[in-house]
Parts: sequence; C-alpha cells; structure tokens
Amino acid sequence: MTEFSARDHAHMARALQLAERAAFTTQPNPMVGCVIADGDVVLGEGWHVRAGEPHAEVHALRAAAGRARGATAYVTLEPCAHHGRTPPCADALVAAGVTRVVAACRDPYHQVSGQGFAKLQAAGITVEYGLMEAAARHLNRGFFSRMERGRPWVRVKLGMSLDGRTALASGESKWITSEAARADVMRWRARAGAIMTGIATVLADDPRLTVRLPGGEDFVPPLRVVLDERGRLPALSQVLTDGLAPTLVVHGEDVVPDYDDEVRAFAVRRVDGGLDLSAVLSQLAQRGVNELQVEAGATLSGALLKAGLVDELLLYVAPVLLGERARPLFAGIDPATMAERIGLKLVETRQVGPDLRLLLAP
Amino acid sequence: MTEFSARDHAHMARALQLAERAAFTTQPNPMVGCVIADGDVVLGEGWHVRAGEPHAEVHALRAAAGRARGATAYVTLEPCAHHGRTPPCADALVAAGVTRVVAACRDPYHQVSGQGFAKLQAAGITVEYGLMEAAARHLNRGFFSRMERGRPWVRVKLGMSLDGRTALASGESKWITSEAARADVMRWRARAGAIMTGIATVLADDPRLTVRLPGGEDFVPPLRVVLDERGRLPALSQVLTDGLAPTLVVHGEDVVPDYDDEVRAFAVRRVDGGLDLSAVLSQLAQRGVNELQVEAGATLSGALLKAGLVDELLLYVAPVLLGERARPLFAGIDPATMAERIGLKLVETRQVGPDLRLLLAP
Repeated sequence: MTEFSARDHAHMARALQLAERAAFTTQPNPMVGCVIADGDVVLGEGWHVRAGEPHAEVHALRAAAGRARGATAYVTLEPCAHHGRTPPCADALVAAGVTRVVAACRDPYHQVSGQGFAKLQAAGITVEYGLMEAAARHLNRGFFSRMERGRPWVRVKLGMSLDGRTALASGESKWITSEAARADVMRWRARAGAIMTGIATVLADDPRLTVRLPGGEDFVPPLRVVLDERGRLPALSQVLTDGLAPTLVVHGEDVVPDYDDEVRAFAVRRVDGGLDLSAVLSQLAQRGVNELQVEAGATLSGALLKAGLVDELLLYVAPVLLGERARPLFAGIDPATMAERIGLKLVETRQVGPDLRLLLAP
Repeated sequence: MTEFSARDHAHMARALQLAERAAFTTQPNPMVGCVIADGDVVLGEGWHVRAGEPHAEVHALRAAAGRARGATAYVTLEPCAHHGRTPPCADALVAAGVTRVVAACRDPYHQVSGQGFAKLQAAGITVEYGLMEAAARHLNRGFFSRMERGRPWVRVKLGMSLDGRTALASGESKWITSEAARADVMRWRARAGAIMTGIATVLADDPRLTVRLPGGEDFVPPLRVVLDERGRLPALSQVLTDGLAPTLVVHGEDVVPDYDDEVRAFAVRRVDGGLDLSAVLSQLAQRGVNELQVEAGATLSGALLKAGLVDELLLYVAPVLLGERARPLFAGIDPATMAERIGLKLVETRQVGPDLRLLLAP
C-alpha cells in the first residue's frame, strides 16, 4: 500500500470537488477531476464537463499552460489510454512532461483498466493509485455499478410522513413534503441518468419526471422510464407528449402494446406477476444509465426492495402524521419476526426546509 | 426592553449550563444556576442541586467568599423572597452587597412572582430581567408548565421503525431501537418527574419504568404512573413489587379496584371510553410532576395526541423496515384530507448509535 502525504490528500480532495461540478452534465461518462501541482503549488485544475468534450486531464494541462514539466498530476480516475471521442489522456500527460501521476482508482471499464497506468509507466512516469478511493468510488457509484455489475445504481426516492405513510387512504399525496424538499429532489434527478416510475403513478398523477432547476443550471435531461407491464400508458401522457426529455416504456414480452409508432419501448419477461426488474436494469445499463432514480409508489418501490435491487434510499420525512389507515411506504414487505426485519444503514441526515432528508443503504 | 451586553450573555449562558447540571436531581424544584461576576471576572458559581438544599445563589455567594460586594449576580430565575425550606435568596444577595442582579425570567409561581425583584430593588439593587429568557424557560419547561398551566409538560417517547411502526403485527417489539437509543432514553427518564404508561403495556411487557444510568450518576427516581382504567393491574407487576421507585395507579372513578392496601391510587372520571387525561395530568401536577414522560403504546399515545395534550414527541427511529402490517405509531389518528393532517415541528435531530433521535413539537 502506497503511503500518501497530507499534501497528496489535499490535492486529491480538490480534484474530487472539481469532478463533482459536472454531476449534472457528464452522463453517461463518469465525473473526473484533475489537479496538476508542483509541491503545494497548484499549476492547473480541470474537470470533465460533458461526454464528447475534453477530459479533466486535458483541461488541467491547458490551465497549467506548459508549466507541467516535472509536476504531479492528481486524477480521480485512471487516465484513459484509448482513442474514444477524444485522444488518450495518458499520451497528453506524457507529452506535458508530468513525472508522477496519483489516481484515486483504476478505470472499472474492463477494456481499459490498467492500460492508462501501463502507458504512463512505460514513459517513465511514477504511478500511484488508491488515494481516497472510497470517496472517488462513492462519487461515481453509478458509473462503477454499470461497469462492474452491469446495472445502474438504484436510488429509490420517497416522500413520507413521520408515521411512514406516502399518501392518505384516499390516495391524496400532494403535497406531503415541503417546497424545499421538492426542490432538493430536482438536484438528485439532475445527477441521475434516468428517472423510473410505474404505470400506476402515471395513471394517477401524470407526472412530468423532468428536472426543473432554478437559475438555468446546466444538466443532461435524464431519460424517463415507465414500467407499463400490460401496455396501458395513455398516448396523451405528459411523458410522451411534452418533448422535454426522452421517454422509454417497458412492457411485458407477451404484450403487444397499442403505442404510437414513435414511442421508444422494449419488452422484458414477466415473473411472479410483475416485470423482470433485473432485466429492466440490465437494459438501462446497456443504454448508459449510471444512476437510476426511482420515484414510484409502494408497489414498485417494494418490489425493488424485495428483489434486493435498491442501493440507496432517499427519504424526505415531513413532520406530519397521516394516520394508521394511510398508505404504507413499501408494499409486500411483511417480516414475521424481528429477526426477519429489513435492516438499513443511515448514511446521511440533513434538514431540508421543515423536512428531514435521510439517505440510507440497505 | 433592557439591552444586555455580550458579557451579560456569556455569564447567563454559563449560569444556564450550571443550572442544567441538576436536571436529574432538583425535582420538583426548578433547575437554577447563578454566576457572581465583577466585569469579566467570575467570583463564584453555583446551582441548585436538590429540593430542600441551598439554592443556586447561596452556593455562588459561598464560592465568592465575601468578594461579592459591588458585583453582579446572574441568575436563571428570579431569586426567591419567601421563607421555604431555606431562607430567602433575595436577602442573601442584599446581605452580600451585590449591586446588580440580572435574571433570565420571573418566577412563574404566582405567590412569589415579582416579590424577589421588589425586595432587591427596595435594597437599592439594580434589577434587570429577560436575558436569554427563552432558553431559561425551555430548560424548565416542565416547571413553567406546572406553574402556568397546572399540568406537567408532556413528552411522549416512542421507538419506531423507518416505516413508522412500533411493533410487528404479532406485538413483538423487543428491540426495534439500539442499545445506544435505550441508554439515551434513560437520561430523558431521569429528568422527568414521572413516567406514565398504559395497562396494556404493563400486561404485555411488565416493564420496570425505572432509571438505569451508568457510572452511578445521581437522580431522583421518577414516579411511575399506570393508567389502569378498569383496575386490572396485577399485584405481582414489577412496578408494584420491585420497590425501586414509587408507583401511582389511576383508575376510573366508577371502578373499585382489587388493589392491595399499600397501592397508591386515585380515581378520575371516564370520558369517551377512556380516562379523563386532563384530570390525570392535573392530579400529577398537584403531586409536583414537572415533566411527564409517556412510554406507552399506540392507544394512550394516540389519545394524548388527539386530546392536544402532547408538548413534545421524542422519537427514536431505527433504520429498519417492519412492513405494512406492523403496528402503527398512534391509534385513532385518521385525517380524511391533507388539510386535516397533524402537523409537527422538527425541533432537534441527532444520531444516537445507528438510530436517529427526533424531537418534535405538535
């Protein structure tokens, strides 16, 4: 294990901060940040803004403006070695005369993993990696999930009352949480590659599932995904007609839906009276979705949880009581004994307006 | 409105800290702290430890050891002017030659309110009050409630799952929350004058309702109160037999319970199929209970909430899911529309071990 100095940590922490600036725009690429430094002196900083545009290293080298010779490059992900839409960053670092590269982690993409490091080492550059790796992986948990597990990182978002209810018995649910909480949700949507819901939610609420950010902040509109097992999605649904973001509909493979010719749809097999959710996730990964945000009712949220497909639970808890007859958080969860209860881990707590935001991991 | 200096605030903040040291021992007296200072220099500090023992001012004057002449006394509550179990503090301050007294608030006890100040002023001492009054009232919210409303401050404590359940459908509830949360509950019990539960909880769990603190910390054992409408409390219940704290049983006035001669009990009228909870609270206030901690099931907790008798909700939320058939937080709460939902205010959030502790106000 390489020992890293406090200075190394400081530069990498900065590189991670830079990477996160593009949380809303890099999809399907990972967020990457780069700091070129000579000792404590920062010569250049950069981050990858958007797929198809220059990588973090290129921006940082440009900012260093020829002063990178003999310097150290801190990057949050292994520099690329292959010609994609941009030339290899490893080549650019070699050409700039950098003598040491510190990376937070290897590239998880199996075709290139280790190749960037090898190219740098072949040019006589000292390569070290593993610095702040956990933070770097957490930042790109969607990208790592897609590369390593072949499915997106699944975040289930729910708004609930203090007594664990998402709607009144009547179905009324607008609004349990505050305006501040709903604005916060938009930022989580913006970093997702797709927002998924169930047909019941579309039929009940006809949601837009789009990102609305104040102040014209830039973002890549996430794909909207509707699970429509039996092909019931109305042609006049907002997700099909507003043109604000692409929409994908998933139906059962034994169903011939009556969709308009222009509706993008795919079929997956049905299991246990529902769509095969693993197959849905696999298809979304193939379409480049890193983080999937699920905003659905108790049925779909509960099914994902039961199937062990939830990576992160984003809960907005409003300090209100909806009562014992109101609708539960998850359907189909019914442990018979305390030993069978579903345990989660509290990752983060924050107050958002009058509400509480909890991030939990199963 | 008197303008207080930063120095005044610093001394009063210290006095409030001192007062709180006796949170577990002053019942039924209020917590009071006192700082004697000459400018920035603190000459003496004191706090009221236990009913019947010297008041805060006396301890602080003793610590000042004759140097209080010309100094300012900061007290969190108006100094007493009457002969109770100890001589009047106002007299002691006058005798010590203090020239200014700053108090956080007036004594709410109507027989003495303002008399302490009057006595000081009559002796030529400058009196100012209202400094950090909200904090001082919050500290002694139990005492102020008993004096001003004739009932204890009612804190309902509940342990719940993330999905708002307090027990499985089977009734199994040991343990939803962590050991850390249960240890934390003990500190809230210790500052309460009484701990109240319902007969159903006693019949199901036979709880001790005592304070168990690590390290031999001193406390006044809170009164245990069981609401036993129809006189069903078993003679062998721990609350009646363990002798660890006094126990009071409340039954309906039309019921002649078969209690042992030694059981302390009183009757209140029955309303709407339950005991008159306002009458219960009034009786407890008359017995000197400042803070009442309710640790009961959904029925009693729900009844108090519906009756508007809950001042504070202390919730321990364990990051687990118990499912949609598990037992609800409050019985009898059933708003028909969002407008009728019960709104609360989040006062404080803290992580306790793996659990979340929420303090809310209706």
